Amino acid sequence: MTANGGWWGRRYGTTPADDAPGAPEAAELPSNDVIELLYRHRSVRRFVAGEVDDAALTAIIGAAQSASTSSNLQAWSVIEVRDPDRLAALSHLAGEQEFIRRGSVFLVFVADWARAGELARRAGEPDDATSYLESTLVAFVDAALAGQNAVVAAESLGLGAVYVGSVRNNPEQIADLLELPAGAFPVFGVVLGHPDPDDPAGVKPRLPQSVVRHRERYRLPDDDDIAAYEAAVTAYYRTQGDDRGWLASAIARVRDAASLHGRHTMRDSLTRRGLPSR
Amino acid sequence: MTANGGWWGRRYGTTPADDAPGAPEAAELPSNDVIELLYRHRSVRRFVAGEVDDAALTAIIGAAQSASTSSNLQAWSVIEVRDPDRLAALSHLAGEQEFIRRGSVFLVFVADWARAGELARRAGEPDDATSYLESTLVAFVDAALAGQNAVVAAESLGLGAVYVGSVRNNPEQIADLLELPAGAFPVFGVVLGHPDPDDPAGVKPRLPQSVVRHRERYRLPDDDDIAAYEAAVTAYYRTQGDDRGWLASAIARVRDAASLHGRHTMRDSLTRRGLPSR
Repeated sequence: MTANGGWWGRRYGTTPADDAPGAPEAAELPSNDVIELLYRHRSVRRFVAGEVDDAALTAIIGAAQSASTSSNLQAWSVIEVRDPDRLAALSHLAGEQEFIRRGSVFLVFVADWARAGELARRAGEPDDATSYLESTLVAFVDAALAGQNAVVAAESLGLGAVYVGSVRNNPEQIADLLELPAGAFPVFGVVLGHPDPDDPAGVKPRLPQSVVRHRERYRLPDDDDIAAYEAAVTAYYRTQGDDRGWLASAIARVRDAASLHGRHTMRDSLTRRGLPSR
Repeated sequence: MTANGGWWGRRYGTTPADDAPGAPEAAELPSNDVIELLYRHRSVRRFVAGEVDDAALTAIIGAAQSASTSSNLQAWSVIEVRDPDRLAALSHLAGEQEFIRRGSVFLVFVADWARAGELARRAGEPDDATSYLESTLVAFVDAALAGQNAVVAAESLGLGAVYVGSVRNNPEQIADLLELPAGAFPVFGVVLGHPDPDDPAGVKPRLPQSVVRHRERYRLPDDDDIAAYEAAVTAYYRTQGDDRGWLASAIARVRDAASLHGRHTMRDSLTRRGLPSR
């Protein structure tokens, strides 16, 4: 699909020299096995049989815990779901995503102020600060940093992973199922399993680096860069039998409340689960 | 500091067998160079001279772009700051953190609905969905997944990194400095540079895995697990000449609006920058 077939070209659907005037050749970029692993990431939704055993998951969650966390507060948790009936229920609640049942384990990453709040209560102290939007944001970021390390660790072990943002389609029902106390809220799920070798899903091209990376000051994108990306990503989608485009999807996603597929009520859901975004 | 001195023991300030009944020995956990790199993460705030050159940063930011992103929307940006005067201004605004000036480059990760909103406007379409809290959360998570891949890639190249959440102490002034348009908001910074070999900062122990990892259902922590962690982390802090404890810090952080060091106004700041958290 690309001129050099290398890690950079696959990620951008191009070669560095094509990307922007003055962009380096891939051969000039520093690399190592870790960087190539990161560039090779793809979302895996097709799995074959095989457990992600307890030792593997212990190593993976320890890697997640090794990510940075704001002020070492560790304001996140992860719920490991393996029970088939519970996976079926979660699959239903998270937008009828059948692949949630097909992996070996489903990890629900949780923004967690319930733990610190409980420790404060045990000490007879208040936990009013958890009610501010800043606290919710800290916990979402903590959960995301941890989740990304988990995905990288899993991929390094040859496992496949996919994020499931649609746990936020019905976050309150999922919180009930996981028995989350007030102050704990599902952020995203991650399905882990052994990838189906026949899965055609590949490395999805990203926007040209020049669009996302800004030197000193922010710039809005050039139409030419967006057009180049549209060509790269539609070529990728066609290999997946999908004729959608990126620009139309992006515009549809920001249009109005209906674009959020029910998640326009997120603030109310957070409030009802003890995180009222003051 | 630990019995086996290995990657697991350093991260938890213990050995797996000490962690919880039935926890595996480190030798029984799967491992590889990637997992060991993730476990070895430490925040680096002391740097020696030496550039993070453009080729290295290009590889690092490409790794960041390789992280998953909700619906491939890529609702984040990164601003690369190298200008000494601007670094000084950012250091001041981000809580007088002198180390921001000492690294080679400061990356400010930005939650970015400005780009998609602009593309919608160019097409004559509305972007009302960006005004919902769900959109802000998506962009914060996207930025965090990207930031974590950047940190992992940088560390794989032998660089040191530290997250700077205090860009949210004065987010509106920082947004002005970076010329962020409405809909774009600073999430965190990451300082990159060459680590000072004399830096004593090490691997900070995390909560026992049993506290953060829940099987099927959430559980609040046992006091014994928290006490064990308090012992492990205060032992670590003492090696850094710091006599603080973890539990007292966690309780202080959740107490009240004053615990947020000015960030209790985050919702108003987001609103003024075009992300009103409806």
